Amino acid sequence: MIENANDVIRVEAGELRTIARQAIEAAGVPTDEAADAGDILWTAELMGITTHGLRRIITYVQRIHDGAINPRPKINVEQTAPSLSLVNGDNGLGPVVGSYGVREAIRLAEETGTGYVACRQSHHFGPVAPYALRAVEKGLVAFMGTNAEPVMAPWLGREVAHGNNPIAIAAPRRNGPPFILDIAQSIVAFSKLRHANEAGEAIPDNWASDKLGRPTTDPAAGLDGWVMPIGEHKGYGLAMAVEILAAALSGGAVAREVNSLYRRDTQAQGVSHFFFVIDPDRMIGREIFLDKVDALCSMMSGTRPIDQNDPVKIPGEPEAELMRRYSVEGIPSPRGRYSELQSLARGEPPQSMPPR
Amino acid sequence: MIENANDVIRVEAGELRTIARQAIEAAGVPTDEAADAGDILWTAELMGITTHGLRRIITYVQRIHDGAINPRPKINVEQTAPSLSLVNGDNGLGPVVGSYGVREAIRLAEETGTGYVACRQSHHFGPVAPYALRAVEKGLVAFMGTNAEPVMAPWLGREVAHGNNPIAIAAPRRNGPPFILDIAQSIVAFSKLRHANEAGEAIPDNWASDKLGRPTTDPAAGLDGWVMPIGEHKGYGLAMAVEILAAALSGGAVAREVNSLYRRDTQAQGVSHFFFVIDPDRMIGREIFLDKVDALCSMMSGTRPIDQNDPVKIPGEPEAELMRRYSVEGIPSPRGRYSELQSLARGEPPQSMPPR
Repeated sequence: MIENANDVIRVEAGELRTIARQAIEAAGVPTDEAADAGDILWTAELMGITTHGLRRIITYVQRIHDGAINPRPKINVEQTAPSLSLVNGDNGLGPVVGSYGVREAIRLAEETGTGYVACRQSHHFGPVAPYALRAVEKGLVAFMGTNAEPVMAPWLGREVAHGNNPIAIAAPRRNGPPFILDIAQSIVAFSKLRHANEAGEAIPDNWASDKLGRPTTDPAAGLDGWVMPIGEHKGYGLAMAVEILAAALSGGAVAREVNSLYRRDTQAQGVSHFFFVIDPDRMIGREIFLDKVDALCSMMSGTRPIDQNDPVKIPGEPEAELMRRYSVEGIPSPRGRYSELQSLARGEPPQSMPPR
Repeated sequence: MIENANDVIRVEAGELRTIARQAIEAAGVPTDEAADAGDILWTAELMGITTHGLRRIITYVQRIHDGAINPRPKINVEQTAPSLSLVNGDNGLGPVVGSYGVREAIRLAEETGTGYVACRQSHHFGPVAPYALRAVEKGLVAFMGTNAEPVMAPWLGREVAHGNNPIAIAAPRRNGPPFILDIAQSIVAFSKLRHANEAGEAIPDNWASDKLGRPTTDPAAGLDGWVMPIGEHKGYGLAMAVEILAAALSGGAVAREVNSLYRRDTQAQGVSHFFFVIDPDRMIGREIFLDKVDALCSMMSGTRPIDQNDPVKIPGEPEAELMRRYSVEGIPSPRGRYSELQSLARGEPPQSMPPR
């Protein structure tokens, strides 16, 4: 599908939400689970995280048609201790399994003040921020993440061996939209190399390595190599930590054992997620907690900016501003993608597989 | 105190441990708490984390003499939910308060499978790795961190407003030393600017900003500015997240409210820490968990290196190797520092205040 930037229409947010749910349900996913999954990707789109938004539905449906993703998984949620649960996703859609995970973590926190849930046998689940938002809307602090198919080399290594393993850390605020930090362990997303390559533009020398492990400004060489970790060995270590928190604790596939979402066979991905939430009501208490978060955010926002036209932002603020605008003005949608989602919602098979 | 690199002696590890404990106890800290604190800093030294090792004792003792750090705090540990506790450190030594925190998190995990503890009214507590090691030695997975005195500007800002807020994530292994990732949110520690400045050497342009927010290769300009975050906005966001996890949840001082360890008045620092542990026995079970961690570590270690002489390492391995060597060969110690620790252990007042 060619997405012509000049052919972008605005679609009313509620309409796009319905289409997202219908497109997933039409692939054989039960109504409630299709609603869960559609809402996660629609929330991502509303936040402006378009790379991990509604375009992923087309990929997910294609992979259901391939027989790789199980549209009707028997998801098993097993509480193993007062604050701990394990989820076996039975190779279901990532946002379906992830929705079970975050709900269970919230339930545990209601009982003991905190909950930790690790999920195995899942798939690519979109960005982490929409899951964190669900916890924050309940007034909870969240730390969540997922492993992912390998696109990075370990620091000092010259072979791709682990994913960019994104995490989110989030908290409610009183004086602004929720604090939501959603970051992968690479300096930039792999798709930025593809975009630069298509545009024929050089990339900064800290974005990617060529296949011999040398920093490169050539996006084509970077596509043959890998994306670089934040803080050199630090991003590599964080990616390993996510493997431990999500996959080792759940008994799921680690690092190279995780398959690609983009292969066209019947192989499930075997992605693992983790969801950790804490209830501030049961720590220092909500009022003092919110006072402190507000004080922190005010200090940061109030810092003199390097450029007067580019003030310091709090993580989550740009996304909240887009959510507000898009809810009023409609969500910008390439016409081709909108048509394909409508076609999927009518139960027609996918016509294409968007690139990573 | 001038530390002449040519005048480094080896001191038997056990002897240094005793001196560390005695030096703290001689400043008025009760025996058990002095042992806790001494052991944390001695472990740091044994791991080769010399910047946060035994030299800090001299600073801490000086701040006790100044009246800023309370040598005999009434530390209050309050369990607020089955998996949550709050610690009020009563302005005690950081490693004393931190030792209460990590012990309480381990205790909670024995009850409910996980424990989360946030501590306020504490001080600089050394590196995070020794606390993580205490949890890992009990077979637990750990995620811990602390806020710190401001040395960084928020991303896009041009004023120092938050700390480098280090975290550690750690897990036991079967086929090697524990996985321990201990990282601050800046690309390099502030002290590296000072060392480069003293050596008259230029620094890479991603280490520091000058006071106007421009990247600089001049360490003196960097000392007037601030150290740069890992992954640009990502490190800034992580530093804020640590403020929330440690300080907002405990009701402690946030960001600019945290005072410097190096001012010479009676003002306590108001540092906050958090300690989170999970028991793998009560997730997927120890054997499968260790199988997965081993598989992960083997995949990373087995990755072809860019340079044959510089293989891929697992976080924690270099520190474990130093611990092994220093336990046998003694710990390298500048003669001047060794003498000063001996003098403190005899109850004499500190003669100097090491720089940050």
